[in-house]
Amino acid sequence: MGEERGEGRREAARLEAFSDGVMAVIITIMAFGLTVPKNTTWHAVSHQLPSLLVYVLSFALIGIYWNNHHHLLRATQRISGAVMWANLHLLFWLSLIPVATKWVGEAHEHSLPASVYGAASLGAGVAYTLLVRMIIRVNGRDSFVAKAIGSDIKGKLSACLFAAGVGLAWLTPWAAYSLYAAVALLWFVPDRRLASRETARH
Amino acid sequence: MGEERGEGRREAARLEAFSDGVMAVIITIMAFGLTVPKNTTWHAVSHQLPSLLVYVLSFALIGIYWNNHHHLLRATQRISGAVMWANLHLLFWLSLIPVATKWVGEAHEHSLPASVYGAASLGAGVAYTLLVRMIIRVNGRDSFVAKAIGSDIKGKLSACLFAAGVGLAWLTPWAAYSLYAAVALLWFVPDRRLASRETARH
Amino acid sequence: MGEERGEGRREAARLEAFSDGVMAVIITIMAFGLTVPKNTTWHAVSHQLPSLLVYVLSFALIGIYWNNHHHLLRATQRISGAVMWANLHLLFWLSLIPVATKWVGEAHEHSLPASVYGAASLGAGVAYTLLVRMIIRVNGRDSFVAKAIGSDIKGKLSACLFAAGVGLAWLTPWAAYSLYAAVALLWFVPDRRLASRETARH
Amino acid sequence: MGEERGEGRREAARLEAFSDGVMAVIITIMAFGLTVPKNTTWHAVSHQLPSLLVYVLSFALIGIYWNNHHHLLRATQRISGAVMWANLHLLFWLSLIPVATKWVGEAHEHSLPASVYGAASLGAGVAYTLLVRMIIRVNGRDSFVAKAIGSDIKGKLSACLFAAGVGLAWLTPWAAYSLYAAVALLWFVPDRRLASRETARH
Repeated sequence: MGEERGEGRREAARLEAFSDGVMAVIITIMAFGLTVPKNTTWHAVSHQLPSLLVYVLSFALIGIYWNNHHHLLRATQRISGAVMWANLHLLFWLSLIPVATKWVGEAHEHSLPASVYGAASLGAGVAYTLLVRMIIRVNGRDSFVAKAIGSDIKGKLSACLFAAGVGLAWLTPWAAYSLYAAVALLWFVPDRRLASRETARH
Repeated sequence: MGEERGEGRREAARLEAFSDGVMAVIITIMAFGLTVPKNTTWHAVSHQLPSLLVYVLSFALIGIYWNNHHHLLRATQRISGAVMWANLHLLFWLSLIPVATKWVGEAHEHSLPASVYGAASLGAGVAYTLLVRMIIRVNGRDSFVAKAIGSDIKGKLSACLFAAGVGLAWLTPWAAYSLYAAVALLWFVPDRRLASRETARH
Repeated sequence: MGEERGEGRREAARLEAFSDGVMAVIITIMAFGLTVPKNTTWHAVSHQLPSLLVYVLSFALIGIYWNNHHHLLRATQRISGAVMWANLHLLFWLSLIPVATKWVGEAHEHSLPASVYGAASLGAGVAYTLLVRMIIRVNGRDSFVAKAIGSDIKGKLSACLFAAGVGLAWLTPWAAYSLYAAVALLWFVPDRRLASRETARH
Repeated sequence: MGEERGEGRREAARLEAFSDGVMAVIITIMAFGLTVPKNTTWHAVSHQLPSLLVYVLSFALIGIYWNNHHHLLRATQRISGAVMWANLHLLFWLSLIPVATKWVGEAHEHSLPASVYGAASLGAGVAYTLLVRMIIRVNGRDSFVAKAIGSDIKGKLSACLFAAGVGLAWLTPWAAYSLYAAVALLWFVPDRRLASRETARH
């Protein structure tokens, strides 16, 4: 039993390493998508400002996923084939963020890119929730990870905000961007309940 | 003997880490190859749809290789120089998938890109089979990995489907794409026999 | 206590692995930003020379961060949520270096790119100092890492040199580039005091 | 002493992990540099053939470095600051290979790209030799790694072949390409002496 748990932990560590690799490349490649200003005037730089701002937002979102994913897999004792596919499914949606980011950076005042950005983020949010469910199914409802996740209010609220953004983008893109930024802020507030449980574990 | 086995396991873990790194970059760079729609109309987005669909297919194929490669190396006790080169050979073919994906995305209705995509996938399939043989040669016919792999029906069937796609693409590209998609579906079905053997091992 | 320390070390190792991944991609993607000469004459190659030189500078700076970051996290026993965010904040600024590098490479004789390059480097420098503070706050003023870092003269001096470069770039970009190169040289000189403390530790 | 050796081994493992990351990105990004044929005719594909061939060569060279680097660091017991910088120096030269590869792919019939490609490879070769020297200096002339490396005939011969290619490219690029390919073939032949020593070690 102890050995099996060790094997499960090692599997989780490898899954995390692969996902970390993908997220590290996503972050860097997204920065590479920032285009160099056309000339060396402040005016040309100001044209790149929307690109930079949406990059900051996307960087924060990927950072949040990386952080949550790290805590999720750290608490996981068992991995199954379904967990592996659910994880790849999450990485798929995250891998679309750089293109969505680039598009918003190029045409931030239009509804369609703002909406598509929200749709990709919503996809990642739903994929994350699916991953959590798969992990809880394999580890059991009484497992440490199931208790640590709890009802995942923040995750569900984030998905709702992204879904609202997909729609509101058609009224005005700025409403959508405000909602997306709200998601990022939501996660910056440290989740004391979870942190204390983790401390209690050791 | 026990120490040597530990060394072999560590070598396999490093080979896996390097391959994971390459596959993580392949996946992300492939997503970066998706070009931003030219304008913000649904029409422009629909023009990107074939690119997105072939990206989904390629993502699934790389995911399948990652998954299989992970299980293969996890069961491996010994690594040789030949295994290292066979692994690099596999990574070479996988590294051609992003370019093939981009080409199909740009000209999916033509036979040549559809055929070339299949050829790159076939190359990866053959390289994987070679890697399996090299690993079995080093670990012995009675080793755990040799028994776990068995006759590798799925691997051989996949190679046949890709080979058929290379030819059928000249009749109509859609026949080829159907075969490639069939390969992906073939691997999504969990392989219970292998999974149970793995469970039995621990 | 011993177990908690082991857990903290493992967390630090993972944080380092993720950061290493981001820095590895930054370095390589920066090299990919070097454009191929337009034709095959020495004249065309000489046009690429400024790009190559600023790449050498950026490579050295990222290398210095990688080296320092490695030593910092190696000495760290405890990680907190704030440390994780401070680390992502550092990676954010480092991820802007490739674009700044590309811009300087394309228009090195202008003040604005030279100044922006310094601003991105200054941001990374400030972020590194913040990361050090967060780590010391979590590990305690009497911890090994707090003593190993000491007063971090070099770090503060580097930030001052970058800040000076941001301003001096408006007089002449070359003054700024000299200061940036001075930062790189400053760190190449081995820091004997730290190295000997490390030796004393083992 | 045993603990210090364990610490040195861990340091070497991390240095290897970082280098593996850089090399994994180099390989993949190089493949991404392959441009999609302009149209879907065999003629357009044949125009990409030189790009593909030089990619195969570069892939093999990076693969050889990865393999040798892996064996070198595996045998290393101690790491110093100088070793870290020597390793970064090697990665610097390797990071230039993708641009050189792209240039040769675009203008393979010209002398300058062929010569520059050889110069970048020569730089990597010299950097590798420097890295070996730094490692032997830290580990001692009687260390396992010093004995395992021996006189490094292959490494020196490779550097000579690359240097010859840099010059011969000006007579005809094909002479240079032949020499570069000869280097790759030279390393594919397994080095039995080293392999047996390694076996003897365990």
